[in-house]
Amino acid sequence: MSAHSPLSNLAVPVRSDGKKIRAGVLGATGMVGQRLVHLLADHPWFELTEVAASERSSGKTYAEAVHWHLETPVPAAACDLVVKGLDPSLDCDFVFAALDSSVAGPAEEDFARAGYPVVSNSRNHRMDPDVPLLIPEVNAAHLDAIPLQQKNRGYDTGFIVTNPNCSTAGLVLVLKPLADAFGLEKIFVVTLQAISGAGYPGVAAMDIQGNVVPFISGEEEKMEAEPQKLLGKWDGSRFVDAGLGLSAHCNRVPVVDGHLECVSIGLKKIASLGEVREALRTFEVDSEMASLPTAVRNPIVVLEEENRPQPRRDLHAGNGMAAVVGRVRECPLLDVKLTLLSHNLVRGAAGAALLNAELLAARGFLTRRVAPSDSQLAEPVSR
Amino acid sequence: MSAHSPLSNLAVPVRSDGKKIRAGVLGATGMVGQRLVHLLADHPWFELTEVAASERSSGKTYAEAVHWHLETPVPAAACDLVVKGLDPSLDCDFVFAALDSSVAGPAEEDFARAGYPVVSNSRNHRMDPDVPLLIPEVNAAHLDAIPLQQKNRGYDTGFIVTNPNCSTAGLVLVLKPLADAFGLEKIFVVTLQAISGAGYPGVAAMDIQGNVVPFISGEEEKMEAEPQKLLGKWDGSRFVDAGLGLSAHCNRVPVVDGHLECVSIGLKKIASLGEVREALRTFEVDSEMASLPTAVRNPIVVLEEENRPQPRRDLHAGNGMAAVVGRVRECPLLDVKLTLLSHNLVRGAAGAALLNAELLAARGFLTRRVAPSDSQLAEPVSR
Amino acid sequence: MSAHSPLSNLAVPVRSDGKKIRAGVLGATGMVGQRLVHLLADHPWFELTEVAASERSSGKTYAEAVHWHLETPVPAAACDLVVKGLDPSLDCDFVFAALDSSVAGPAEEDFARAGYPVVSNSRNHRMDPDVPLLIPEVNAAHLDAIPLQQKNRGYDTGFIVTNPNCSTAGLVLVLKPLADAFGLEKIFVVTLQAISGAGYPGVAAMDIQGNVVPFISGEEEKMEAEPQKLLGKWDGSRFVDAGLGLSAHCNRVPVVDGHLECVSIGLKKIASLGEVREALRTFEVDSEMASLPTAVRNPIVVLEEENRPQPRRDLHAGNGMAAVVGRVRECPLLDVKLTLLSHNLVRGAAGAALLNAELLAARGFLTRRVAPSDSQLAEPVSR
Amino acid sequence: MSAHSPLSNLAVPVRSDGKKIRAGVLGATGMVGQRLVHLLADHPWFELTEVAASERSSGKTYAEAVHWHLETPVPAAACDLVVKGLDPSLDCDFVFAALDSSVAGPAEEDFARAGYPVVSNSRNHRMDPDVPLLIPEVNAAHLDAIPLQQKNRGYDTGFIVTNPNCSTAGLVLVLKPLADAFGLEKIFVVTLQAISGAGYPGVAAMDIQGNVVPFISGEEEKMEAEPQKLLGKWDGSRFVDAGLGLSAHCNRVPVVDGHLECVSIGLKKIASLGEVREALRTFEVDSEMASLPTAVRNPIVVLEEENRPQPRRDLHAGNGMAAVVGRVRECPLLDVKLTLLSHNLVRGAAGAALLNAELLAARGFLTRRVAPSDSQLAEPVSR
Repeated sequence: MSAHSPLSNLAVPVRSDGKKIRAGVLGATGMVGQRLVHLLADHPWFELTEVAASERSSGKTYAEAVHWHLETPVPAAACDLVVKGLDPSLDCDFVFAALDSSVAGPAEEDFARAGYPVVSNSRNHRMDPDVPLLIPEVNAAHLDAIPLQQKNRGYDTGFIVTNPNCSTAGLVLVLKPLADAFGLEKIFVVTLQAISGAGYPGVAAMDIQGNVVPFISGEEEKMEAEPQKLLGKWDGSRFVDAGLGLSAHCNRVPVVDGHLECVSIGLKKIASLGEVREALRTFEVDSEMASLPTAVRNPIVVLEEENRPQPRRDLHAGNGMAAVVGRVRECPLLDVKLTLLSHNLVRGAAGAALLNAELLAARGFLTRRVAPSDSQLAEPVSR
Repeated sequence: MSAHSPLSNLAVPVRSDGKKIRAGVLGATGMVGQRLVHLLADHPWFELTEVAASERSSGKTYAEAVHWHLETPVPAAACDLVVKGLDPSLDCDFVFAALDSSVAGPAEEDFARAGYPVVSNSRNHRMDPDVPLLIPEVNAAHLDAIPLQQKNRGYDTGFIVTNPNCSTAGLVLVLKPLADAFGLEKIFVVTLQAISGAGYPGVAAMDIQGNVVPFISGEEEKMEAEPQKLLGKWDGSRFVDAGLGLSAHCNRVPVVDGHLECVSIGLKKIASLGEVREALRTFEVDSEMASLPTAVRNPIVVLEEENRPQPRRDLHAGNGMAAVVGRVRECPLLDVKLTLLSHNLVRGAAGAALLNAELLAARGFLTRRVAPSDSQLAEPVSR
Repeated sequence: MSAHSPLSNLAVPVRSDGKKIRAGVLGATGMVGQRLVHLLADHPWFELTEVAASERSSGKTYAEAVHWHLETPVPAAACDLVVKGLDPSLDCDFVFAALDSSVAGPAEEDFARAGYPVVSNSRNHRMDPDVPLLIPEVNAAHLDAIPLQQKNRGYDTGFIVTNPNCSTAGLVLVLKPLADAFGLEKIFVVTLQAISGAGYPGVAAMDIQGNVVPFISGEEEKMEAEPQKLLGKWDGSRFVDAGLGLSAHCNRVPVVDGHLECVSIGLKKIASLGEVREALRTFEVDSEMASLPTAVRNPIVVLEEENRPQPRRDLHAGNGMAAVVGRVRECPLLDVKLTLLSHNLVRGAAGAALLNAELLAARGFLTRRVAPSDSQLAEPVSR
Repeated sequence: MSAHSPLSNLAVPVRSDGKKIRAGVLGATGMVGQRLVHLLADHPWFELTEVAASERSSGKTYAEAVHWHLETPVPAAACDLVVKGLDPSLDCDFVFAALDSSVAGPAEEDFARAGYPVVSNSRNHRMDPDVPLLIPEVNAAHLDAIPLQQKNRGYDTGFIVTNPNCSTAGLVLVLKPLADAFGLEKIFVVTLQAISGAGYPGVAAMDIQGNVVPFISGEEEKMEAEPQKLLGKWDGSRFVDAGLGLSAHCNRVPVVDGHLECVSIGLKKIASLGEVREALRTFEVDSEMASLPTAVRNPIVVLEEENRPQPRRDLHAGNGMAAVVGRVRECPLLDVKLTLLSHNLVRGAAGAALLNAELLAARGFLTRRVAPSDSQLAEPVSR
């Protein structure tokens, strides 16, 4: 599933003594948390040392506390971890935060203040003026905001970095090469989103069986706001919006995993359909990015069949980290119409957070600190 | 199901001797044909006297030949009708044509040439320059094209009238009061269409179970062309397009009946959301139209709940003849966003054809002819 | 939907002044409660005067408090009723109880003790030794237990009558004519149950989408116990079990409404398949029973098609009050195999309770009491 | 997906020059054929050299001819193979036959007569008195029938071996250790079968969406006959039936892959539930069998959760080659009830055929013959 690409020598952030960076997962029993626990098994750089959850699981092990949704078993290394509360005293070097938005806001700040880098999947801090909303292939330069964030908030070693909403992630990944090549003016997008995006128990079967629900609370607002920041710039002191015209309609459909999006795009520069397809097909990340274990070199897959992409059939492209595009054609109103699919739990959540953490590690924002189990001779860490 | 409203005296086209107009159904064993047979049971004006199909059913009765899909039984009056071929020698005063488009083109012309009014659901003649593409509540004046059609084609009493594609029907019904009140400029529409729209066997379960198929052959083209004609004008010699900017994306979703559409609308005149809702809610047909047995006085139902309309829950509004609208809200790109639902087999097909036939009957285009079973003293009908 | 058959004169329990018997519904906002509220609209004998629920809806009207699941709107007469708590001081002559089993036990007793006949759909008192578990077409004689129940428990005018579990109802209805004609020895049954049987929100879409869950808590136990009582006898002092061998497997499937059951039956007397089909097909209720508004004269419908019954297609037979049987064939292990379907929310719950109430009313167990709104001159009712 | 276990030295049938045995697939474009093509990619013993289909694909390549249903792409080695007709002149050492039963009967005989070992998934020859119906873990000794088959039919090097029906495969695998430990008397089984079992296009979405179809043509007959042969013995001249009492009800449910079965079992010897669970859990194949690339050492997985197995969650146990058992409990009528799941396309079809071929190869029934591309010095083969 998560076959890791060979790494370039320069970027590997594992210590010379072979010790990996220790990760905790906040919200580890939820749907996204489970994916993170799954993706962290056998990760070349990170090892999972802590799992925490907002609901008191009163000392249960992870295997006892979790209602596991993946087809593969709970990773052995996670089974016996005791589920902790959200107190920022975990034995790890950074945390993934996959908490419900009702608790994520202050909890993430608590951890950052206590010195933990927080790699968040929640919406709470995404639009904060000093928090990077990050897709490594799209706006890695936004990491430059971290020092100002730490200064603003009085954080020492801690900080918060977020990934976008699950339906934004695939859209912006596909928009990126078009923005670079032709410039973007207007975007119309209608989503057909999978039920796993609502967590568990999430959507009631009585509501979605043989049905469509044309509403997802807060989703259209997120889709109309987040791309502006993602495709915009960090000017050294603030994020400058991309200035796009953007309109979103969001629907829930009876599909387990995979968000499909129908998109019409208005470009700044005239482009033929062939040029648009070419820009999508040849979109490739640089070698630093390609060396991240979770990255795929070509994160956009373009299909030629007239009836693709389809959630059940194209979900796993690029181990769930690719956006799959099909039906590139002319739009009578704007310039181009296309359909795109991305895995809402991987590219749109757990995989997104993991890739963010990998970029942070490659750039030195995450490091293995001296822990009790490490050598006695290691220099002490201020904390 | 098909409760018929009380009729005004003036429009009732039933003869003084109580004889109803005799209808045939071409393509009677198909999904739309079945709905027509169902809706014609106990119809106050029409009686079903013939069923025909393209596949030779070799003298089978309708009950034997049909693979019935409705929850109610095959109407008693239809059970024993012998299924005929597509030869234009049926014992009826007009025909409904619900044929597959692979055979509908010439078959409909054959019947029209032989003197039968043809009320068609097929796409073949919809865009013909002398054939009305009709939604009674929208463009009844287009019937004025019939005499020219007859003259052009050398038809005597016969002619062809069509109803729009199933996904166009609901859209245009909703657009009509907005066009009247504010004028229309641009329409962006994404459909989530039910499987029954593809007929039977139609969509394979392997293709749509827990999945979405982002393609329906020819559908986007129809949706981008038909509204131009429907919302345009008959100027006495030709149809003048409405001149809309229109872009459609069409998807198949795992829903049995009911097409949902996400629509963004650009208006010519500035209007508040309140005015838009009011125009939709107060859309009412005139008393001639309201007297048609299948008509509903208010063919647009506006829901206030934030997560409606939904196919499984709102399908039967107005006995399947209403378009149900919800989520009227501002569009950041155009002016208004909304979601609409209509019953693809009723408002989008069988009910549409039936309402067309009723309007034709009320206006004298359909009449009971002297038949062998009628009294010898009945006055001769010119045909 | 609930077209009421014409009533025989003798059984009509409506007072000579036309006043109907006043019904309350406990658990009125739940899935079964909603069906009851729906079925009570325009009922010829009963009028709905009170709705109550366990969760405090703090003075909300029914329309405000309910998350309505039916395709038809909330009945006008119910919309403005204020939702009360479960205090036995409601302004009605009897109550339907459609409460969650976590609260139904004592609540039903409280109402019975306070003088209200309680027509219950909950499992709590079904197997009590002095409570009738009633299917009118099967064991109307069990009503004879009511006086003893009242004596045992010190109830005055109140009492409790229950209907069986939703999956038992259809099974026992089909077994009844076979028990009468041939005697029953052994029953194997495997159910494929609809999601609506679990209430709302009930089953999570993540659990049942494209899946089967081979377990329903407590269901197999109920199916193995209740038929013994239903098909047994009241001997004047106690219920004598039918002494059947019975084995049940229960599954949840992704179907909205309608429980399908695969049944193998061992008979005491040798019977041909023709005799079995005939016994099922000719099963008919007596004229007292047929006069109940919700009853159908032939509550078993036998289909001949080899692939029926099917939930989505045969659900509404007999307005949801019939059991639909198909595939009657030989069983290599026992004697007969068949497949049956019944509507879990109608025949298996709300319709079952309503029919029970109608039988109680026809037999004089339910009467309109003098209420403040009645004439002062009305004769006093003993209660 | 198809991770192959390390092989014991003795059984590897690959030639010392490293040449693999060449396999053809008849019916390669169908649902089962596709799985075979997928499973043969990177197989340690077999290489796919020919694909054939009954419908003339007129010289198309496999990639052009197939409507591919798996989530992984068409294997590179298969893409460019030209699809042949069913003429027994293919360049391979044996064939898998995954043909529709309407053509499989004579086609398989033609290939066997022409000298090809035929490893069939079709029903046509399963119950022939000289054809092994094989599950390696259950009745490997039935291969002893091959020489008699060849003699009877005048086959030279060719022969036919079959695997059971998809719903029989999982059932018999689970029955095997119980038969060995306790003896079997009676089996009652109800299936809930996935749509992929019907091929493509197979089941129409209109028939199965939100529905159950309680009938699969011929399936109950197969399930009641095949286990008798599988669990019976080859006595040197004929197959002796197991003499079980067996009753099956078969249903289609809206699940993509995975047949679930509810089973009640009557044993010859008294056994506790603990002993039954132990017999299932400890069922292990011998080392010859375990060395087959597709085999799993413990082909029965016993789950303890009360609501498992479930098709969507437990389908991939043992790479789809395990039968997953849950809910082992007492049966009031027979002795034991349980629920089992197996992958209908892997354990029930393609994987079953592949495992059969592996056993045949390990026992010397399949060998790499001299082919034009092989060494010129190899001895000629009579054919």
